[in-house]
Amino acid sequence: METMPKAVLKVAAGDCVYPVIFNKPAALSSLISRYWRIVIISNPTVYGLHGQAFTRKYLSDARDVVSLVIGDGEKYKNQKTINNIFDHLLDFRLGRKDLIIALGGGVVGDAAGFAAATYMRGIDFIQAPTTLLAMVDSAIGGKVGINHPRGKNLIGAFHQPQAVIIDSVWLNTLGQHYIIDGLAEIIKTGFLTSPDFLAKTIDILDRVKEVKTEDLLPLIREAVKFKADVVAQDHRDRNVRAILNLGHTFAHAIEKTEYYHRYRHGEAVLAGLCGMLSLSHACGHMTKAKCDNFVTLLAPALRHLKKLNHDIRDYLSPLTVDKKIEGGCVNFVLLKDIGRTVIRPVKSEKLVRKAFEFMIETVNGYAGRRKA
Amino acid sequence: METMPKAVLKVAAGDCVYPVIFNKPAALSSLISRYWRIVIISNPTVYGLHGQAFTRKYLSDARDVVSLVIGDGEKYKNQKTINNIFDHLLDFRLGRKDLIIALGGGVVGDAAGFAAATYMRGIDFIQAPTTLLAMVDSAIGGKVGINHPRGKNLIGAFHQPQAVIIDSVWLNTLGQHYIIDGLAEIIKTGFLTSPDFLAKTIDILDRVKEVKTEDLLPLIREAVKFKADVVAQDHRDRNVRAILNLGHTFAHAIEKTEYYHRYRHGEAVLAGLCGMLSLSHACGHMTKAKCDNFVTLLAPALRHLKKLNHDIRDYLSPLTVDKKIEGGCVNFVLLKDIGRTVIRPVKSEKLVRKAFEFMIETVNGYAGRRKA
Repeated sequence: METMPKAVLKVAAGDCVYPVIFNKPAALSSLISRYWRIVIISNPTVYGLHGQAFTRKYLSDARDVVSLVIGDGEKYKNQKTINNIFDHLLDFRLGRKDLIIALGGGVVGDAAGFAAATYMRGIDFIQAPTTLLAMVDSAIGGKVGINHPRGKNLIGAFHQPQAVIIDSVWLNTLGQHYIIDGLAEIIKTGFLTSPDFLAKTIDILDRVKEVKTEDLLPLIREAVKFKADVVAQDHRDRNVRAILNLGHTFAHAIEKTEYYHRYRHGEAVLAGLCGMLSLSHACGHMTKAKCDNFVTLLAPALRHLKKLNHDIRDYLSPLTVDKKIEGGCVNFVLLKDIGRTVIRPVKSEKLVRKAFEFMIETVNGYAGRRKA
Repeated sequence: METMPKAVLKVAAGDCVYPVIFNKPAALSSLISRYWRIVIISNPTVYGLHGQAFTRKYLSDARDVVSLVIGDGEKYKNQKTINNIFDHLLDFRLGRKDLIIALGGGVVGDAAGFAAATYMRGIDFIQAPTTLLAMVDSAIGGKVGINHPRGKNLIGAFHQPQAVIIDSVWLNTLGQHYIIDGLAEIIKTGFLTSPDFLAKTIDILDRVKEVKTEDLLPLIREAVKFKADVVAQDHRDRNVRAILNLGHTFAHAIEKTEYYHRYRHGEAVLAGLCGMLSLSHACGHMTKAKCDNFVTLLAPALRHLKKLNHDIRDYLSPLTVDKKIEGGCVNFVLLKDIGRTVIRPVKSEKLVRKAFEFMIETVNGYAGRRKA
């Protein structure tokens, strides 16, 4: 029982402090009672599975609750969905002092959060992330937004939620792919924190078929705590928060090339970590031996990935509109060792290309392999 | 020379502190040198008149300046314009650490500011308001946004600029209507500050035909200072900042009914002040004599308005989607006396209707009259 999460963690982001509530509806009731109208924004799948139970469990004291479902999937994280949300919020006559609850994965959280950030210049919202990935990543730290045809998350805002609700019952209905997706992102956290945490997460991903909710909760709590610590230091993403993007420049390139389809975000990050390790070595921050050791360590995780079957040029082209562009070259988060990052603009296209080649080769070498 | 504005005023909004710079390009140069790329967003008229001179005067130290013009007028303050701005910012490869300058009136400031607030989760921007109204109102305090088909400013954010530039040369090219527009909004400030300031502003509006830049600068400075004080107390518009909406609930109803066309914002506010005075009396905050005295005081200003020629039902209907709705009734900012406001939800539709009737009657009684 020692590793069971405590009921509430705090996130301090600028002048906002809010709780991450684990499995404890009572911790939410005084907050909920402040609002007149509440709109739950969800997607059809999640709302069908958990909508009613969520309302019963967490909103029993609420006065006026309505719901709105939006399309399921990254391709719906766009301006059209936001406009649709606005129309419904106006239909519901939602006012400046009312509340939105985002019940769903990252798409719902990002889109509903961005609607909350810009409806009437910003209204309160709560993140209720139902996927493992959203629990440990997008629901924490106030980044909300939508995609632009030319790039992921190019339009958005910082809008901290009033609370984050994590309920382990939602993990039970997640397909294995979603568990892999979340664990892959937690592996990134492992590279930023400790060898033990990294090894533990890879081990759990290795035996993902028999993984239980009790295995996941301690990981979630540790990942949330780490992200909260980083956000507390730099909630507007001006310096240290960038380390959370470890592997993400590669990941965004993969997602863009796959049109957010074949590769889930966490999977793309996991693949991207290979590219990052290679580039860290190429830029002189890590020996070849250390890079290879890390890749070997990642092997049980990498075998859960699909092959990267596009041409390398396809992966490289999205880099030019990446948000991290400054003065013409791309900033990468690189690794010296576990917990020791360095952020560098990499000017040499050749080095970047080689890192992509390494990533593709490595991922395709392990992808789909059976358990050793 | 005693009333001439000093070169810089400070606005403190939450953790943002920024200068309002009056006629002093040198005060801007260290800020400008921080940025790599700068995009000036303007409209064709303003950019044609002042674009080149502005760049020469204020951006001589800048490295890379491009410009983008958007449609002129309230009807362009919409999502389509924002999407157009995003496309161009991406074409320009504007990054997170680059700068937008909004050179124009309220529409340019609000739209370019909202684009800055949501492009890559928010980038820096500078307000360079070229109309009197924008100088004293929309450019100060970080409110940015666009209209929704169902209501004005329903979509937006709080995004404080890095600086506000006020250059009196811009006043020289403003048509008389724009001067009236701005003075009308300053009259509202007069009701919130002092009888002297109110009388002085009405007097200047009375003789608007011969008004000079030197007459306007002290008013601008006092109005900016007052707004900055209010914003400092409540930058997120949660309590006292609401007093700045004196007359605005009526004004928004007029603007909506006129489709932001026949009535400019300041003119609508001036008309709205009549409705506000009547409602303040009807709600017991002001004697009939005081209400009548204020209307008489306003007479020289009211004669500059056009007639309100819609049916009263047309004016009343937009109230139902006003942002200030809470729990079904509309919040009004009412006046006890100059500088003494009270914010009240008014449940009686009859009282609201009577105030609208009074407003229409009063405005139409004075509208277009010759100078006494």
